[in-house]
Amino acid sequence: MSFTRPEDIEAESFRIIAEEMKEKGISIPGDEAPVTMRVIHTTADFDYSATLAFSKGAAEKLSRLLKQGTRIVTDTNMAKSGINKGLLSGYGGEVLCFMAEKNVASEAAERGITRAMVSMERAASLTGDTVYVIGNAPTALMLLKEKIEEDGYRPAFIVGVPVGFVNVVKSKEEIRKTAETYGIPYIINMGRKGGSNVAAAIINAALKML
Amino acid sequence: MSFTRPEDIEAESFRIIAEEMKEKGISIPGDEAPVTMRVIHTTADFDYSATLAFSKGAAEKLSRLLKQGTRIVTDTNMAKSGINKGLLSGYGGEVLCFMAEKNVASEAAERGITRAMVSMERAASLTGDTVYVIGNAPTALMLLKEKIEEDGYRPAFIVGVPVGFVNVVKSKEEIRKTAETYGIPYIINMGRKGGSNVAAAIINAALKML
Repeated sequence: MSFTRPEDIEAESFRIIAEEMKEKGISIPGDEAPVTMRVIHTTADFDYSATLAFSKGAAEKLSRLLKQGTRIVTDTNMAKSGINKGLLSGYGGEVLCFMAEKNVASEAAERGITRAMVSMERAASLTGDTVYVIGNAPTALMLLKEKIEEDGYRPAFIVGVPVGFVNVVKSKEEIRKTAETYGIPYIINMGRKGGSNVAAAIINAALKML
Repeated sequence: MSFTRPEDIEAESFRIIAEEMKEKGISIPGDEAPVTMRVIHTTADFDYSATLAFSKGAAEKLSRLLKQGTRIVTDTNMAKSGINKGLLSGYGGEVLCFMAEKNVASEAAERGITRAMVSMERAASLTGDTVYVIGNAPTALMLLKEKIEEDGYRPAFIVGVPVGFVNVVKSKEEIRKTAETYGIPYIINMGRKGGSNVAAAIINAALKML
């Protein structure tokens, strides 16, 4: 165990990731590299280098939004827990998650929709800009798509990385098309993989770029 | 979007996972299958079927411990956040994580060790049984190894699934050897992969087996 200080371990990890990316012939554009590498650091899974999709300049755009203290709304308390609140609060930012609020569950049950959909509706009703960080629920992405296309709503940014086997691939393809059409910046992981840990890693990468 | 109810989506996901495991020629022993499948469900990564290592009867043993309300100590608040507290508290269980306590950071800094090591020392000083759920820090596993070998300490169970590129593979190999030697039941993911999401998925699988 030659490394024990967290900052040394992280530096050595990123050195290994860069070296193995080179060996594998993986090349990532400059502003995307810190995000892709941190996702690989979080998952030990180089597949993400092929599946993470960025709108033009997305990583820098996300960093700028966080620097301005733009509010984050996420669909899982696990992603909220994984986001570096020390860094975030230094820029005046905060992370909201409505999923576990009691009246969200009851409203979802009454209306026969998911808690994630109710949560996204509440987020979309807030004034001011919101960065959406979706690590779990395809229905959250579909609700955002509807809000964008039918209500003229404009998220400031969409991180779309649900994981899973049902509705997930399609929801990410559809929100990407919608985001492209309406010029909404995004980072989306195409395919089945993703998760709360990946969602948090993307935000933390953008924070560490500052 | 033909599935919207969470329980239907989960059932359909497990059906797809079982089908694809069969197609890939993956066969998992009976009591391990619910754990392995839930980890795949959480990560969309079938690699785990080859790398998850179980001591004999580990999944059932873990379930029994949780049914008895055995305390869980974890090395990340993200894993704590991901564990199904509704199910857990029904059996009288609780999840503790000492990582973010202020005096843990200061003690770690003073002694030149990691916060995870200080957290594990505190956990090992508690009376009664503890299930350790390590999703992040190789040093947590190394501290447990030392406590077992040098102080005669006996964890009730070890879930060892840190993720990463430095110290991670070795720490999992070493704690597995120690656990085998001293008859401590374990679920360990060999290799680089793992994480807080995987740690929580293993506990939730054991809870859902009840």
